[in-house]
Formats: sequence, C-alpha cells, structure tokens
Amino acid sequence: MNIQELSREEQVDQLYDRIHALLDQGETRKAQIVLQALLPADQAEIFADLPDDEQWQVLEGLPVEGTADILEKLADEEVAEIAQQLTPEQLADILDEMEPDEAADLLGDLPSEEAREILTLMDTCDEISPLLLHPDETAGGLMTSEYLALGQHIWAERALEAIRQWDSEHEYFYYFVVDGGGKLLGIVSLLQLIKANPRDEVAAFMARSFVSAPVEADQEECAHLMSHYDLTALPVVDAEERLVGVITIDDIVDVLEDEATEDIQRLGGAAPLEKPYLLTSTWEVTRSRVGWLLLLFVSEMFTTNVLQHFEGTLQKMVVLSFFIPLLVGTGGNAGSQTTATIIRALGVGEIEKKDMLRVLWHEMRVGLLMGVCIATVGFLRAWLFRSGDVSLGLTIGLAIGAIVLWSTSIGSLLPLFASLAGADPALVSGPLMSTLVDATGLFIYLTVAQWILGV
Amino acid sequence: MNIQELSREEQVDQLYDRIHALLDQGETRKAQIVLQALLPADQAEIFADLPDDEQWQVLEGLPVEGTADILEKLADEEVAEIAQQLTPEQLADILDEMEPDEAADLLGDLPSEEAREILTLMDTCDEISPLLLHPDETAGGLMTSEYLALGQHIWAERALEAIRQWDSEHEYFYYFVVDGGGKLLGIVSLLQLIKANPRDEVAAFMARSFVSAPVEADQEECAHLMSHYDLTALPVVDAEERLVGVITIDDIVDVLEDEATEDIQRLGGAAPLEKPYLLTSTWEVTRSRVGWLLLLFVSEMFTTNVLQHFEGTLQKMVVLSFFIPLLVGTGGNAGSQTTATIIRALGVGEIEKKDMLRVLWHEMRVGLLMGVCIATVGFLRAWLFRSGDVSLGLTIGLAIGAIVLWSTSIGSLLPLFASLAGADPALVSGPLMSTLVDATGLFIYLTVAQWILGV
Repeated sequence: MNIQELSREEQVDQLYDRIHALLDQGETRKAQIVLQALLPADQAEIFADLPDDEQWQVLEGLPVEGTADILEKLADEEVAEIAQQLTPEQLADILDEMEPDEAADLLGDLPSEEAREILTLMDTCDEISPLLLHPDETAGGLMTSEYLALGQHIWAERALEAIRQWDSEHEYFYYFVVDGGGKLLGIVSLLQLIKANPRDEVAAFMARSFVSAPVEADQEECAHLMSHYDLTALPVVDAEERLVGVITIDDIVDVLEDEATEDIQRLGGAAPLEKPYLLTSTWEVTRSRVGWLLLLFVSEMFTTNVLQHFEGTLQKMVVLSFFIPLLVGTGGNAGSQTTATIIRALGVGEIEKKDMLRVLWHEMRVGLLMGVCIATVGFLRAWLFRSGDVSLGLTIGLAIGAIVLWSTSIGSLLPLFASLAGADPALVSGPLMSTLVDATGLFIYLTVAQWILGV
Repeated sequence: MNIQELSREEQVDQLYDRIHALLDQGETRKAQIVLQALLPADQAEIFADLPDDEQWQVLEGLPVEGTADILEKLADEEVAEIAQQLTPEQLADILDEMEPDEAADLLGDLPSEEAREILTLMDTCDEISPLLLHPDETAGGLMTSEYLALGQHIWAERALEAIRQWDSEHEYFYYFVVDGGGKLLGIVSLLQLIKANPRDEVAAFMARSFVSAPVEADQEECAHLMSHYDLTALPVVDAEERLVGVITIDDIVDVLEDEATEDIQRLGGAAPLEKPYLLTSTWEVTRSRVGWLLLLFVSEMFTTNVLQHFEGTLQKMVVLSFFIPLLVGTGGNAGSQTTATIIRALGVGEIEKKDMLRVLWHEMRVGLLMGVCIATVGFLRAWLFRSGDVSLGLTIGLAIGAIVLWSTSIGSLLPLFASLAGADPALVSGPLMSTLVDATGLFIYLTVAQWILGV
C-alpha cells in the first residue's frame, strides 16, 4: 500500500470508518487484522479516535507486540488512561515490548508505587531502571538504553555477526565502540562494517571524531547538536565519558516541534500547554493563561496613572484621547515585530548575547525608517481628521514616529536582557512587550502634545 | 576529539582564534590542516566568521572536496558571495563534490545564464539537471538524486555487493526496489539485507507498506509525513509512482526549524526574513515589517472614529479615557493568547477545520472564566481609583469581562477562518488580532459606560 500524502488523510478516515463498522458488527478479529496491516502511526491515529468501549474491544486478544506498537505512538495522556485499566501483569508484558525510552516515559507518568510494582514484573527491568533516574527533558530522559556497544579490537565480520544476532526492537545503523571501562572511543556505521575488510579491527576504521552529549544536557541542546552536525544518532555519556545511552533522530524531531510550540505559546503570552489542545480541559487552558493575563492587566494599570497625570490636557482637548488606542497599539505592534524576530534569531543561534549592541543599532535604524513612514501617514490622518488642523497633525505624526523608534529599540533589547539574565527570551512575549511600551508611549504622546499644542 | 556540548562553543571559539592567528602569520597550510581535522559543521562555522581576505587564503590550495564540505554547510547568501569570486571551472569542480540537492540549490540561486554555463562544465550534470526543475520548497526541490534503486529479483548478496561498490557522497541505509519501468515497489534497509539469506530475492523481504511523497508536495507536508511515521528517508515519486528522488531526515530538520521561524515571525506581525538575521540589511528588515505595520495602523484608525462617536460621553467624564489603554490592551492580550494556541494546534495537526465549533465552545468557556477573574480585579481597581465610586467600578469590571470573553472567542475563530479560506493561519498574527479587537472593545466599553453611568 503506497500512501500518497494528498490522499493520506482521506485514506485514514476511510479505514477508520471500516474498522469502526467491523467493531460495531462484532467482527473484532477482522477489525484487528485490518488495523494491524497498517503502519504503526496510522494504527495509533485510528485507535485514538475510536470510542472507549471499541478501544477495549480492539485491545482484547491483540498480541502484546501489537498493543505496544499502538501505545508507543499515542499521546501520553491517552496511554495513561488505558494503563489505568490494565492489570500490572498485562502492563508489564506490554512495556517489555516497547522501546525502552518510551516504556520509561510511561512508567514515569504513573504513581511511583505502581511503577515500582510493574517494574519488578518486567523482563527488561534492568534496561529500563537506569532510564528512570533522569528528568524527562534531559539527554538522559530522552535516550534509549537499546544500543550495541562493540569492543575496539573486534573484527568487522564478528561485529556484523553480532548485529545479525542482535534482536533489537528497532533498526539501528550506528554502533558504539568502547574500551574495557565502557568509555566511548568511536562510532561505526553498518555501511563502514560491510565495506571494511572482514578481518580489520573496528578501531581501525571507526570515526574517532564524533559528537556526544552529557547525560544531564537539556533536550534542546541535544536537538541543536543533532541538527547542527546532521546526526541521526547521538551517544550520551556520563561524567567519565562512559556510554550510557543513545538519542535517535525521531525523538529529536518531536523535541524540535515541542520547543517551537512552547515558544509560540509563550510569545502569545500564555504558559505552554502540557498536552494536545483538544485533550486539555477548560480549567487547564484557563490556568495556562489567566496568570499572565492578570499580571499584564495589573502592570498595564500604570497607563491609567500616566493618563491621570495629563488629566488637564485631556480635559481641554478631548480629541487627544481619540488617538490613544491608535498610538499605543502601533507602538505595541512595532515592538512585538522586533521581539519575535530577535527571539527566534536567539533561539536558532543566529545571534548571541555578544551581538547586543550590533542588534540594537540595526533595530534603531529600522525603527527610524519605519517611524518616518508611519509619522507621515499619522500626520495626514490627524490633519484631515479636524479639517486642516496642522498642529494636531504635527503632534500625532511626531508622537507616533517617536513611539515606533522607541518600541523597536526596546523590543530588541528586552529578549537580549532576558537571555543575559538566563531567562527564556520567549517569556518576553508580544503582550508583555505591548504592556511595557504602552505606558511609556502615552507619556511620549502627551508630552509632545503639551509641547506643540501648549495645552 | 570528543566535543562535549557544554564546552562546544568555547572550543569552536578557541579553534577560531588559533586558525585566525595561523592565517595572520601566513601559515596557511597549517591553518588548513587544523580546519580540515574538524567536523564539517564546525569548519563552516569558523570559516564564516573569518574576514573575507582570510577566507580566500583558506580556500586557495584547499582540495575541492574540502571546499565542497565547507560550502555545503554555509548559509545560501555566504555561498553566493564566494561563488561570484570563482571561475566557472572552479565552481563546477566544487559542485561536482557536493550533495546533488545542495548543488542544485546553489545553482538555482545563480543567474540562469551563469548556472547553465557551469552545468555544462560539470561531470554530474545529468544527476543535477532534473533537480533544477522543481521549486525550492517542494519535495522535488528538497530531494537528492543520489539513491540506490534495486531490481526486485536481485539477491540479497548481490544487493550488498552493489552497495559496497556504490561510491556515494554520504551514508545511506535505505535502498529502493523498483520494477522495470522504475515504479517504486518497496524499501529495504541495510540491516534487512545483512540479516537476509544471501540468496533471497529482495522482493521477498522488502517493506511493501511504505510512505512516499509526490514530487510537487509542499516541504511542510513532507516534514509532517517523516515526523508522523518516524522516517529517516522519504522516497519521492512522480505521477506514475516512479521513483525520482529521496528526501533525507537532515533536510527535514532544517525545514521544521525554518517553518517554525516563519510562524513566529508572522505571529509577531512581520513577513518572514529570507536569511539569517545578522545578514539582513536595515532596508530588508524594514521592508519585511513596514507593510504590516502600516496596514495595521490604517485599520486601527477606525478606533479614532469609534471614540469620536462617543465624544459627548468622554467630554463629560474624562476619567473614562484613562482606562482606554488598559481595556483595549487586555482585550488584545486575551485574543493573542488564544490565537497563538490555535495557530500552533492547527500547525501540528492537533485540531482540524472540522473541530471549529468544538474549539469555539472550549474557548468561550475559557473566556468566561478568565473574564470573571479580570472583571473582579478591574472592578477593584476602578472602585479604588475614584475613592469608592461603585458605578465606575461596575462599568470597568463589566466592560473588561465582556471584552475578554469577546476577544477570546474571536481569537479562536480567526485562525480557523483563515485556514478554511486556504490562508496561512499564522497570518492572523497577534498584532492583527489586537487591531481587530481594539475597535470592537472600545465600542463595548463605552456602550456599557453610557448604560451604567448614564452619560
């Protein structure tokens, strides 16, 4: 079956309908056969959409390998829900068939009492236990303990024989050469092994120049290492440079997507959601946002004081208040344009902290250019608004130009300051930016107004 | 040399200093040796930071393979700059040593006259030419023509022999089985080949269930396919299902990063930048932002009219104008929180268009909860602001609650509408969102004020 992207979604939908219908007619066996003929990712997608009772119908009598394949691809929360309904013995059997890193993640999500009980029932207990020691978002939490370590003096043909015998859950194409103490010395690929002279020792042709990650490294660092060096497998080592695990590229692709999601949600001014959108409750979504919204609301209250300070001016010329949303809004927009650019450039490593002055200078020139453009339009708008009131036009034009220049400069500095302080630059989100430039923008506006209009 | 992440940046900086010093002392040969001992990604990083004249010093006398390795890893603009200084013959030799997809990208960036001349000078002309036919951001533009196609009746041992003889630029672990007409039938991995009985035909054990992409598929679709199915190689086929190329995972990692960058820049309300931040000129950055900023400025002008409509009310109670930035700012914040969440959930496929009503209902409940929280704080703020003015407190509280509910609902619908209309939901950026809810928010606010305060 060759699945073309353009029709993939429809194909999966059709298969869902077919499996759903079979289950409905009590043809469980047939439904299982149809499902198991699919690629694991599609199996999981269809399974997740089935009603709860039909999910159980499918799982009953499915071989443990089949169940393991499906659970590996489901979202963590869905797996947890299913795990609760299984006996510890059933769960242990299924976990034995899963990739060690996935199994460890699942165990980590269970209450620790329960996880310990299940672990003792598992055949792969020794393989999984070390993985449970590391926080989820580190190299240690991401790595699998399923890898093949070779001695440095082993012949190529012997290494190939070992690979033929190795009954791994997944296909691996890189193997790791270690010394007697387990210290990582080099990496060989399957291609190197089949091209090598059968009696050559692996140490003779292994890659000695390689990249590894310390077990406590942040997952984002690992992702950048693998992306920077175009790696498909990244060895993880302890403080003594002993090999303890391997991170594979499929995990990193997920990390990159998750990190981008977090950045985007933070930029929007909300805490990142821990799970897929439709699985979050109203209360969870609210909790992820209301804190920030309140914080911004309270800090934005300062604008009320700024305006009160200019009460006399506003009283005399109420027309000035008509332009308040336009001016503060545009300042906020200019600031968040800049912030988004800088945060992303920091995130992918295009700029570093040391580039701060260069970035500021760059943004100030951009701000000046944009300020002049917007000031011209602003002048025309205000001038036409009160049929030919030149001084109102000048006030609005000058104020908006200054606000754009100011917001652009502040917008470039804030993420860099956050980064210097060791905070996530994405925390300096668009909304936070807007709030900060609003109060200062109003001050600029009404000071310019007092000066030009003399009110 | 084992590069630990924690010290990687420092190590690269140190090596830069050393190479820079060697070049300065005229020790070009030594500098080249130090540089070439590094991993290609590090070579390129150091090379890119060298002053122009030292870059030329390094390139002179470097073997073409070495130059090709460095150019492959540089940003497109840096490569173009260097390419301009080389003779067509030199460039052709270097391109011959590059991965075909990278070489095609570089040729695509040159003026077409020049590209055609260089192409005729290249040994790999036949391999590269077909790649030039496809737009950069499609499967065809991303794929490499360097792959190994096997006949279905070939024995495993013969296939292994072919792989041993194949002099590919890079290591590939998956091979493609085709029929006499070139139609893709299945995929075999190197691991399957060495585990198979030497005299088995590949058709007997190849994976017949596989995923492929049509040559015109968008690069983002390809990225999602590879991420969804955990693939490291994705075959690309033409309309007759004939194999025409292969996309490798390293290209997809770059695509994922680029797409996230685009989303983030759009969310910030700017057009995506085409190149790394520090390489863009003031004018290019301005151009990417000023259009949006002006558009938003003009649409935000509508707020002036809304306020003018309520001129009498504002004239009588100037205190109402003090709360304008607070109310419109909070409405904008609530809207962009929602928009960011929805855009990302759409982007990674967590929600689809058909979920629109479910999403709206979800967000309305969230908006109601948050509205009540913010309304309480808003009431207190206004009540305390004018020592115990209950009706002002009620006005602000009620208005801000309604604005939050309204902004959250609109914020969830806009990206979904954009997606329904076939537009990029990220275009419905935070700033655009704010602008839309500002005018409506003011209308809500001052209507509530008229109603409660009777002004």
